[in-house]
Amino acid sequence: MSNLKNKSLITTQEWSKDEIDTVLKKAFELKRNFKKGDYKSIELLPGYTLIMIFFSPSTRTRNSFEVGMTQLGGHAIFIDANKSWLGRKSESIKDTVKVLSRYGDVISIRIFPNITNWKYGASNQVVREFVKYSDAPVINMEDDLYHPCQALADIMTIKEKFNNIKNKKFVLSWAYHPFPLPLSVPNSTVLIMTRFGLDVTLAHPPGYELDQKIIEQAKENAENSGGSFEIKHSIKEAYQDADIIYVKSWCSLKYYGKPKEEKKFRLPYRGIWICNDELMELTNKNSIFMHCMPIRRNIVATDSVCDGKHSVIYDQAENRLHVQKGLLVSILKS
Amino acid sequence: MSNLKNKSLITTQEWSKDEIDTVLKKAFELKRNFKKGDYKSIELLPGYTLIMIFFSPSTRTRNSFEVGMTQLGGHAIFIDANKSWLGRKSESIKDTVKVLSRYGDVISIRIFPNITNWKYGASNQVVREFVKYSDAPVINMEDDLYHPCQALADIMTIKEKFNNIKNKKFVLSWAYHPFPLPLSVPNSTVLIMTRFGLDVTLAHPPGYELDQKIIEQAKENAENSGGSFEIKHSIKEAYQDADIIYVKSWCSLKYYGKPKEEKKFRLPYRGIWICNDELMELTNKNSIFMHCMPIRRNIVATDSVCDGKHSVIYDQAENRLHVQKGLLVSILKS
Amino acid sequence: MSNLKNKSLITTQEWSKDEIDTVLKKAFELKRNFKKGDYKSIELLPGYTLIMIFFSPSTRTRNSFEVGMTQLGGHAIFIDANKSWLGRKSESIKDTVKVLSRYGDVISIRIFPNITNWKYGASNQVVREFVKYSDAPVINMEDDLYHPCQALADIMTIKEKFNNIKNKKFVLSWAYHPFPLPLSVPNSTVLIMTRFGLDVTLAHPPGYELDQKIIEQAKENAENSGGSFEIKHSIKEAYQDADIIYVKSWCSLKYYGKPKEEKKFRLPYRGIWICNDELMELTNKNSIFMHCMPIRRNIVATDSVCDGKHSVIYDQAENRLHVQKGLLVSILKS
Repeated sequence: MSNLKNKSLITTQEWSKDEIDTVLKKAFELKRNFKKGDYKSIELLPGYTLIMIFFSPSTRTRNSFEVGMTQLGGHAIFIDANKSWLGRKSESIKDTVKVLSRYGDVISIRIFPNITNWKYGASNQVVREFVKYSDAPVINMEDDLYHPCQALADIMTIKEKFNNIKNKKFVLSWAYHPFPLPLSVPNSTVLIMTRFGLDVTLAHPPGYELDQKIIEQAKENAENSGGSFEIKHSIKEAYQDADIIYVKSWCSLKYYGKPKEEKKFRLPYRGIWICNDELMELTNKNSIFMHCMPIRRNIVATDSVCDGKHSVIYDQAENRLHVQKGLLVSILKS
Repeated sequence: MSNLKNKSLITTQEWSKDEIDTVLKKAFELKRNFKKGDYKSIELLPGYTLIMIFFSPSTRTRNSFEVGMTQLGGHAIFIDANKSWLGRKSESIKDTVKVLSRYGDVISIRIFPNITNWKYGASNQVVREFVKYSDAPVINMEDDLYHPCQALADIMTIKEKFNNIKNKKFVLSWAYHPFPLPLSVPNSTVLIMTRFGLDVTLAHPPGYELDQKIIEQAKENAENSGGSFEIKHSIKEAYQDADIIYVKSWCSLKYYGKPKEEKKFRLPYRGIWICNDELMELTNKNSIFMHCMPIRRNIVATDSVCDGKHSVIYDQAENRLHVQKGLLVSILKS
Repeated sequence: MSNLKNKSLITTQEWSKDEIDTVLKKAFELKRNFKKGDYKSIELLPGYTLIMIFFSPSTRTRNSFEVGMTQLGGHAIFIDANKSWLGRKSESIKDTVKVLSRYGDVISIRIFPNITNWKYGASNQVVREFVKYSDAPVINMEDDLYHPCQALADIMTIKEKFNNIKNKKFVLSWAYHPFPLPLSVPNSTVLIMTRFGLDVTLAHPPGYELDQKIIEQAKENAENSGGSFEIKHSIKEAYQDADIIYVKSWCSLKYYGKPKEEKKFRLPYRGIWICNDELMELTNKNSIFMHCMPIRRNIVATDSVCDGKHSVIYDQAENRLHVQKGLLVSILKS
């Protein structure tokens, strides 16, 4: 078990496998002891404050953190950063972070690519500036490159659903969506799954390649973990015999920050790159269907898949709560 | 006493009299033991979370719930729904509610008629969808048909001010107001007051009739409770010998969602359908003046009435706190 | 030691020296016992609620109060007043305050001059209306005349940095800034510093005089405390042998609420009325540099000053937390 005291989380890729396992172990322990209305866990972080800075909207992230801190005996402050001095550019990131980290015990930030004008990696740089100047640990609640809390909840969910996750066939399948979405979830997904020895298939139409650096890291992860990593352009081939189908839309790096041009490029895949029963039929009998949510129903996946026997989307969303509580306890108490 | 564990509250009309009495009893008990700065009640809901979803603005509702949860040892999350995925229509109600009810212990929602384009009953349908999909109890914080928490505070206030409320003359009097307001409060008011055996007079100018279904329910309630229900178009007749004057503006169903047309229709009543000292003189000596607030002073009621000897508006507003604490404890702990 | 139970804070000027000292003593005690992650202080205000009403944005004020209440075992509600009935003018201040003070244990308000159309003193009148109608103590979180919580944190910081603050040379130096800023901080600063016997120099270009009434109060304070008060138009003279340099921009009362006209008047001072190393060289060896933040770096003060050996800006900001906790405990528990 690693000592994670005061450790910031920008991406799981920069944490050792043992550090990630330490958080997961704590998360499973907390979930095992979890019972609605019976919150003995308030003894864990009494009087602690998480300061959450949101430049971008959120449902699961905000609520799982705010409920989580309450269940741990502390409090999470919700800040709409666009209405703060930070959003008005009256104050440097350094000054805001230096001050807030004197007050709170942990700081978290969400900053989508539009906030930094779709300059790939610029939002992640803001998160790194937070870490640089903070006197308290910082948690990345999703930037333009990574969504590590989602990745932790995802791997937790898979471990929960399968006795042995080693070399399970994990498919991350691109989906059509009316708007261009960030790359943070696909990046974090391939990085964490290759880390845990799954056989990862990344499926998308040509033009939706992930950042080459991420691909190389995923390959290296797979090599080290005894898993594998491959890319498919055929959705049917990808789904074949899969254990885990993870559907997610993301934008094309070729047209990054150019929504009109990308729209033309994306439109032909509408109704084709959608997860439906027919495709799910190609997977293994006990396969699971995952999505990080929010999910555009009947565009990204059909109702019958979202609500069907393979779907674990609500368990996956619930695990955001447990894994983030595990993370908070690990970095604040150990 | 009823067991209310996990019971949702859409309208008091769908709760049995015994269930309502159970909440009121708990509310009176909590109020009796209430002392500012002495919050032994924090032992009642330690670590619990109420997730409050506001599509519409609020002062009393938000603050009484948020203070109430704090005094009970838990926490209330304030969500501006228009800024969430829900408000952006990126996510189905089902998915949002399924997830949030995995996190929180109770969910509440406020949704005024404008949010569903003044289609009478459509906001209530949203609340019912919340109840349908939620794994946790749901509290209606006011939709386009009902405001049950207000109704509970109102009946609590009346019980507090009179030894015996049976057959007391209760007048719900329409008032002029610069904008068309929802029907939720008048609907909930006539339903709860007829339920408790009061002699209810509904007073309004022609054209401001409540929904026929509500009227029929009110009559049936009165019959069952030994109270009575009548409608008056003369404000003076209505006030005569009243024990309780409840003033409230609402819009005309004839011009529902058509503010310009209604304005012409409403304007003649300005300065006439206003509660003033002259009218209050017609009531019984110990009569009380009620309003759910916010109140447009000197338009809906004069300053001298709002601040006068009959007025109980601040006690009524304070009872929101106590009755909602009673409700929360009843549905979460019993 | 004074008994401050239920006492409102509009400006330190209306509190006795002993009352201010009582808060400072409590603040130092809380700071001495303060250790991140070890919040025994949650026993001080368990279940208490502070209702914070913000008409204007905030970083330090909101977060120090919200973290502070959490560390004291209570909760602070954050209200964006512009989205409330108050902001929509649907409800009188009286009614809002009467109701909220039935719920919460203490109420605080921030209201900048723009909210009351730059009518000097009008925002302060709103705060005074809050105090008038509230059944709970009210804290001014900055209006158009005063920022008393900042003043308390400032004097705390100075007491912390110097063994004996009597007759230390304190310079409040105006600075150029791209927008016209309120007078609340300079007003509160000269009032508190003259109160504590410092030798106060107020430095600004002609045309940036403070309100004559404030000047007279500062002079009277100095006379009573054994300190002194003078005004300089030469920035260099002002800095000479200073112990404390407090830099702050404020607007000209001559052009109050007329930003375009003032801009022309202000522009010539750009790059001249800025705190830099050259000026800091004129001060005493152990002098400190203060600013209430947010600070426009390299406009109001250079990076090398903000981050240099004299700078205590982060300690000053941290003291907001401690002094406000001291204030809350003093007015709620004594």
